[in-house]
Amino acid sequence: MIGRVSLVGAGPGDPELWTVRGMRRVQEADLVLYDALTDADALRKLTRGQCFCVGKRAGRASVSQATINKLMIRAARQGKQVVRLKGGDPFVFGRGAEEALALALAGIPCEVVPGVTAAVAAPELAGIPVTHRGIASAFLVVAGHAGDALDRTLAAVQPNSLTLVVMMGLAGRAPIISQLLARGWSSDSLAAIVCSASTPQAWTWSGRLSEVADACPPAGAPGVLVVGDVIQVRDALLAAMARDAVTDEVKYGRQ
Amino acid sequence: MIGRVSLVGAGPGDPELWTVRGMRRVQEADLVLYDALTDADALRKLTRGQCFCVGKRAGRASVSQATINKLMIRAARQGKQVVRLKGGDPFVFGRGAEEALALALAGIPCEVVPGVTAAVAAPELAGIPVTHRGIASAFLVVAGHAGDALDRTLAAVQPNSLTLVVMMGLAGRAPIISQLLARGWSSDSLAAIVCSASTPQAWTWSGRLSEVADACPPAGAPGVLVVGDVIQVRDALLAAMARDAVTDEVKYGRQ
Repeated sequence: MIGRVSLVGAGPGDPELWTVRGMRRVQEADLVLYDALTDADALRKLTRGQCFCVGKRAGRASVSQATINKLMIRAARQGKQVVRLKGGDPFVFGRGAEEALALALAGIPCEVVPGVTAAVAAPELAGIPVTHRGIASAFLVVAGHAGDALDRTLAAVQPNSLTLVVMMGLAGRAPIISQLLARGWSSDSLAAIVCSASTPQAWTWSGRLSEVADACPPAGAPGVLVVGDVIQVRDALLAAMARDAVTDEVKYGRQ
Repeated sequence: MIGRVSLVGAGPGDPELWTVRGMRRVQEADLVLYDALTDADALRKLTRGQCFCVGKRAGRASVSQATINKLMIRAARQGKQVVRLKGGDPFVFGRGAEEALALALAGIPCEVVPGVTAAVAAPELAGIPVTHRGIASAFLVVAGHAGDALDRTLAAVQPNSLTLVVMMGLAGRAPIISQLLARGWSSDSLAAIVCSASTPQAWTWSGRLSEVADACPPAGAPGVLVVGDVIQVRDALLAAMARDAVTDEVKYGRQ
């Protein structure tokens, strides 16, 4: 009997932000192929299945996409219940759709379990709503490592017209900031960086677009860059969040 | 002792797509204030707390935002654990940040539990990734009921440059389509409507932008309008999803 692959969104980091279905799929899995950003210790406590990291780790190359596809297909053909655990949501810059297409070609049953995307949740946990009535009624999510594609997107959008969320752009933030300024975004635009939201390593910076280059996020940490007027509500929102005795600073991604 | 309010994202509909933390907050709540789109029967089975619908229901006006705030604050002051259960993610067009600010002003502890946003999950469950390498490296989320704000956003974005997701725009889709066409979006643009994704009422339509006005989504159903080239991968993705014996059509929002 053929198995099945579940492409499961793991959210921004904390396993408590997995979906109920995603958690059950992990618990019942025979094999979990997870990204480098997953909390591997937490994962191993949650499942008796075999867990295998296929993401990039410091100093080691990641497993190639072709190999990941092969691993999934082989295990499913052996009748295994496979979970492909992907940070955030599987279909937001996650190559999830490419993996689903590879499974389709191989005739492997596949389901997709959406996840909490860091594009929304990382700012949110740091007190920044991507939309707010009277301030921003639209948000744009782009991949910072997309090079020409990023440039085309930035060229296609009027500066300071909406909330901009740049994912996977922290390492290359200097050229991105230059691009934004060159495209007409105000150097005084409010900006924030949120790294490792919902994890013990959570780290947040906020300031002006012109100052982003001076921010020093933890090296190698995943994070988002947010640019937009919505950041102005942050202090007031954090005041509410800080009153929550159950909440520690870490949980909300505060500095 | 003062209670606490948790603003919990309920995802697109199915309680299995709540987060683990959101589920626990609901289970432990003394009072749950939920939106009209919540599956009330499922909710009542999951919690012993008092459940109160504060959303719009057919023929009845919704509870005003001021009243919702009062209800949350009063219950928290009585020492209750309150869950404000909101469709999708609390900070995506959900007035969640406004509610958090009201709680802040009243000195009520508040936490935010992110949810799976329908902006991503509704298309995803219908086989449409909002991003796909080589096709779309950015997506824009706008509120369809935003009137002038929507028009300003559409004016600020180059036609057909990214995946467009319009939330809460189904009832007013005719003028939105007119705006898009007037702004230069191609009438041949691929378009899709996904309603009530992840629920037994799931319904999907796909076609061309020029044909959207002819689609007949179930009246009153929540849904998203998607415009973009990513829709071209849908058939291949559905082929993979359809092979999943565990998956019924309903779960994936197919017609």
